[in-house]
Amino acid sequence: MPVPASLQFRDGRLPVTAAFSIHVQGSTDRRLEEALRRMLRRLEGRTSLTLSREPAEPQKATLVLEVKGPGNALPTLGDDESYSLEVDGSRATLRATQTVGALRGIETMLQLLQGDRDGWYLPAVTISDRPRFPWRGLLIDVSRHWMPMDVLKRNLDGMAAVKLNVLHLHLTDDQGFRVESRRFPELHEQGSDGLYFTQEQVRELIAYAADRGIRVVPEFDMPGHVTSWLVSHPELASVMGPYSIQRKWGIFDPTLDPTRDQVYAFLDAFLGEMAQLFPDPWMHIGGDENTGNHWRLNPAIQSFMAQHRLADAHALQAYFDDRVAQLLQKHGKRMMGWDEILHPTLPRDAVVQTWRGPKALAESARQGYSGILSWGYYLDHMLPAGLHYTVDPLPADGKRMSEEANRWIPVSWYHRFQFKPPEVAIPEKNAVHVLGGEACMWSEFVDAETIDSRLWPRLTAVAERLWSPRNVTDVKDMYRRMARISVQLEEHGLMHERIGEVLLRRLAGSNEIGPLRALANLVEPVKFYDRPVQFQEATQGMPLTRLVDAARPESLEARALWSSVDDLLSDAPRFDRGAERLTRTFHQWREFHPELRQLLDNSPALHEARPLADALLLMAQTGLEALASLESGTTPRPGWREEALQRLNEAARPHGQVELATLQPLRELVLAAALQPEASALPAAAWQARVKAEALAAIPKPPEKKK
Amino acid sequence: MPVPASLQFRDGRLPVTAAFSIHVQGSTDRRLEEALRRMLRRLEGRTSLTLSREPAEPQKATLVLEVKGPGNALPTLGDDESYSLEVDGSRATLRATQTVGALRGIETMLQLLQGDRDGWYLPAVTISDRPRFPWRGLLIDVSRHWMPMDVLKRNLDGMAAVKLNVLHLHLTDDQGFRVESRRFPELHEQGSDGLYFTQEQVRELIAYAADRGIRVVPEFDMPGHVTSWLVSHPELASVMGPYSIQRKWGIFDPTLDPTRDQVYAFLDAFLGEMAQLFPDPWMHIGGDENTGNHWRLNPAIQSFMAQHRLADAHALQAYFDDRVAQLLQKHGKRMMGWDEILHPTLPRDAVVQTWRGPKALAESARQGYSGILSWGYYLDHMLPAGLHYTVDPLPADGKRMSEEANRWIPVSWYHRFQFKPPEVAIPEKNAVHVLGGEACMWSEFVDAETIDSRLWPRLTAVAERLWSPRNVTDVKDMYRRMARISVQLEEHGLMHERIGEVLLRRLAGSNEIGPLRALANLVEPVKFYDRPVQFQEATQGMPLTRLVDAARPESLEARALWSSVDDLLSDAPRFDRGAERLTRTFHQWREFHPELRQLLDNSPALHEARPLADALLLMAQTGLEALASLESGTTPRPGWREEALQRLNEAARPHGQVELATLQPLRELVLAAALQPEASALPAAAWQARVKAEALAAIPKPPEKKK
Repeated sequence: MPVPASLQFRDGRLPVTAAFSIHVQGSTDRRLEEALRRMLRRLEGRTSLTLSREPAEPQKATLVLEVKGPGNALPTLGDDESYSLEVDGSRATLRATQTVGALRGIETMLQLLQGDRDGWYLPAVTISDRPRFPWRGLLIDVSRHWMPMDVLKRNLDGMAAVKLNVLHLHLTDDQGFRVESRRFPELHEQGSDGLYFTQEQVRELIAYAADRGIRVVPEFDMPGHVTSWLVSHPELASVMGPYSIQRKWGIFDPTLDPTRDQVYAFLDAFLGEMAQLFPDPWMHIGGDENTGNHWRLNPAIQSFMAQHRLADAHALQAYFDDRVAQLLQKHGKRMMGWDEILHPTLPRDAVVQTWRGPKALAESARQGYSGILSWGYYLDHMLPAGLHYTVDPLPADGKRMSEEANRWIPVSWYHRFQFKPPEVAIPEKNAVHVLGGEACMWSEFVDAETIDSRLWPRLTAVAERLWSPRNVTDVKDMYRRMARISVQLEEHGLMHERIGEVLLRRLAGSNEIGPLRALANLVEPVKFYDRPVQFQEATQGMPLTRLVDAARPESLEARALWSSVDDLLSDAPRFDRGAERLTRTFHQWREFHPELRQLLDNSPALHEARPLADALLLMAQTGLEALASLESGTTPRPGWREEALQRLNEAARPHGQVELATLQPLRELVLAAALQPEASALPAAAWQARVKAEALAAIPKPPEKKK
Repeated sequence: MPVPASLQFRDGRLPVTAAFSIHVQGSTDRRLEEALRRMLRRLEGRTSLTLSREPAEPQKATLVLEVKGPGNALPTLGDDESYSLEVDGSRATLRATQTVGALRGIETMLQLLQGDRDGWYLPAVTISDRPRFPWRGLLIDVSRHWMPMDVLKRNLDGMAAVKLNVLHLHLTDDQGFRVESRRFPELHEQGSDGLYFTQEQVRELIAYAADRGIRVVPEFDMPGHVTSWLVSHPELASVMGPYSIQRKWGIFDPTLDPTRDQVYAFLDAFLGEMAQLFPDPWMHIGGDENTGNHWRLNPAIQSFMAQHRLADAHALQAYFDDRVAQLLQKHGKRMMGWDEILHPTLPRDAVVQTWRGPKALAESARQGYSGILSWGYYLDHMLPAGLHYTVDPLPADGKRMSEEANRWIPVSWYHRFQFKPPEVAIPEKNAVHVLGGEACMWSEFVDAETIDSRLWPRLTAVAERLWSPRNVTDVKDMYRRMARISVQLEEHGLMHERIGEVLLRRLAGSNEIGPLRALANLVEPVKFYDRPVQFQEATQGMPLTRLVDAARPESLEARALWSSVDDLLSDAPRFDRGAERLTRTFHQWREFHPELRQLLDNSPALHEARPLADALLLMAQTGLEALASLESGTTPRPGWREEALQRLNEAARPHGQVELATLQPLRELVLAAALQPEASALPAAAWQARVKAEALAAIPKPPEKKK
């Protein structure tokens, strides 16, 4: 994962034993040698074998590397990442044009390692691989919550394992200024609570990333999102200060004053310093979500706008962007920014990052600008991997993609959000402008302890979408492979698999958390922006140690339950397949309830989850009633359907920003019981489709918003 | 934990809510303020409450601190660590003479936090506390396996949580030279594979420890254990080089040449540099396990000995120690070393660290030397917490202590090691020379990933032994509290609770590890030095990712099983109590066996555990037979007892340096079935004692060693 561009399994296998050895022919460099050292250590960790570090003769080596040249020591957009891997019974041969291709091939080889009764081996295979898109990134917001070096390093390892190649660091925002400036030390001193990367650390991080074939693109968000800058530099603001670091979440008014030369002189010096520090040709200047409110409040800015015939805030921002673009050009950098920077005078070599959606991507491509897609890849929205996987920067068929994607909209958002087919398709001639995409991890509700579990394993789905051919779209197979890779990713110290239990033990104050783990495995954090909406008192200092933080973004147990219901319904009208599993599950929910309630009672931090435990009990009861009806072939009594659905609607309510992920399979069970009389009249598939459709129709509409 | 010197619970409770606030009166310093910040963050993490950082008025504060003075900024032997803590319905009052006492009291308060249906609270309590011993340490060997900064930092946090106050860093040994020397950079450059602490890191670590009231004592082991020094300085050796870093485990011959002035000139410069770097008054020079072989090989050394009338290697080492002691004195340091340094000319202010046992401790105390006990506290021996807990540096009754301690000797060592009552008791007048003790973590078989799980939670038992009054000896209660504290310790990032599952997932290559986890929970690594003896090919590069590394040093599940057997036997001749639990357990072992075998087959790294899985199945069968006999009141057929015990003896064999921890309760079950006819004739307790005695007698003797 990601699936290679071309792959054929063959008969045979290459045993991996303690005699595993490597021969490098052609070019080698320090990066390649260190990558091989890391590879050996990972092989050792998985196999428990002690492997030799001595280079082998070419004819005796288990792995032969043929690399033509080192390529750019610093990863660069458009590097040749292709490689081929040939495994037969006697050796594995990895060929690449450049070191970076060899790095990609090494990860593929590590994923191929398997074991059975006869020992470890690589299956015989012929792989020829290259990425679909050259820009495959991850944005980490280190401003809203601070992420120290080790968090970034282990995530760089994870990124390399799934062939991502850009780490986009969102370094500054209202809530924190996270990089040392030697030119203006007051920026990080007063804007960061002491939590920032020193320049030495930045260099260390860039080198660490480069060793793994990953670029580091810094973002300095402006002219909005700058409160943390204004703490020490209120003179740059549009409205008189003083300012202090913003502790809340949202979109705020503080903005640089784009009308004063002093601001550009400051930016010239600051961006000049950062241009030296960050070697990548692109520099991201944000440019998003400027409210314009502070510009309206300042008469001097208003008169400047009148004088320069700038009709509105958008025009003034365009003016600002143009001047910043000139500064970047002066310092040898190309501009990158969010959708909002797109306007007629934007330099041709700028890259537009799209948070608004396919339409914006198409528009920038139409205007000839390179663009990358981030809309649809917001991992902080707590959506299923299947949804992200279904979003394609260049879909073959926008309509079909939208239908597929809509299957993955969480139930609680069924009436609130649906994908629509893109209005503007991207014509083939513009496709070259779509460079790829970036998953985003905004950090309002993640910290150094929980970020891994919000990134992984779902990020692997985005990585595959951006690397593998367009026609690799089997979601079920993706989930199967994702589970396997997720465990492999732990070897980098990533905490996604383990942190949930750590938090549950902390919440329970005990090691005995069986029923609590069962509950946590069936719930999910609320989706999109529901967490701040439901919990408006959230601040930067709030501990992220609640059930919502322990719950995985996507409940695989709920998916398994749903799949059992599918089995049952597809077995109409016998209703045998899956029935035992479902009965056992519902019995378990009922049986652990008293112990669970006691656990929740004993920990005040878990009190908020008590209604969820009770809701689960109700679900168990409802499920068992439906199963009884289906198994006995008895139609439920009149009114039962409405009562049962009502019960489920009660159970659907979020508590503590957590919702049960088991709603829809339960609704389907209820409707299956209710629609049972028709099951013998219709073909199973048609009847099942009817049940599913009615179950969707049974999702209650959210109340109208008050105006 | 550790239990305070004096503690009375009272009626009432102090609610801990989001309004929790602090008032500090009297002295404060940066250390105290940072400790309070850390305390608030931990409170927040556990309670999920967001707490204020604003100081409160004294009458409104939830916690009032009264500290008389800051005390030594750098922790010093003999610091006043006492404190008192008074909690009533309106506030908690923590009083201490010095900041370091306040640090100890804060940990006690954090341990008191509880929750129930009504919320979080501190129980009303009156505590007056002070340590029993002033030297309560942990030795970490960073030489044999490298332990980076974050490992040491999180373990310093853990040490502070249980009131330990000395981190003893074993910095150099045959396998690695782990500290930067600016005077002789070739030492760390050639002796460490690049894995060493820079001087900046050392200072950072010392400051981190000092903030937590913990001293850092460095050890530079000499004249033996110096292979890593000799890589770059073969001219200091007793036998001509060249030398390379030792990769194996054991006791090796390379030794400094004590007869040449050049060696002392070098040590003068090197120790002088280290004396500047490490501020603690003591410097540990090891002095242990010098084979003397290389001294015998060198004629020049032999003639030096003749000339100076040094009768043997011990005498020559005494000469060496004396000269090193003079160097230490010159650099303002006191000497510390292992037992072997004890000889008549040892400076009076030296501290002797005992690895040989109570007799050696008594001897150094008799000679008026201060000593600390490490024998009995070797956590790398994989012994039960109960054993370490039972070892007391100053036992009230040596005989009774030995009996208690022998209950904790693992079955596999029953015939190989038993505690004997000390031959020499330490008279009261010498007791003052016993400063305390140090747990030891030698790192042949632990690395940065596994060390936490080999230290914790067992280290808490040693910490309590060294802090709490001598009469705190309830082992069962210690285990109860240890389980609770173990979970709290996770908040420092300690990995002891989570790493086992991480390794099992890696071994299985999957998230579905149910039966593997069940097996891992019933086994233990082999004890004392059995791991290297059974696995002689072990080297420094060997991956520590096998079942033996995932298994906890002490199986709590096996203890629980034993306790169920105790319940059953004490219920003779009804045999009802505990029977259902035991039956369920044995059925489980039988049921998961096929799935477990498949898991083990599929991962070659787990092949070595297949005999253990089969042994567990045999145990289940044996246990069920015994239960059937006891429940039906039927005496087993003739020969069954012998057959069953033989089966268990087969099951007792270690595989992959792992042994099943369930042997003895199973033997007891077998003997209970066999001795059933006598159960109605004897009082239950007497019959049970008989069963236990025969079960011990049934442990087979190990074969005689070949000569």
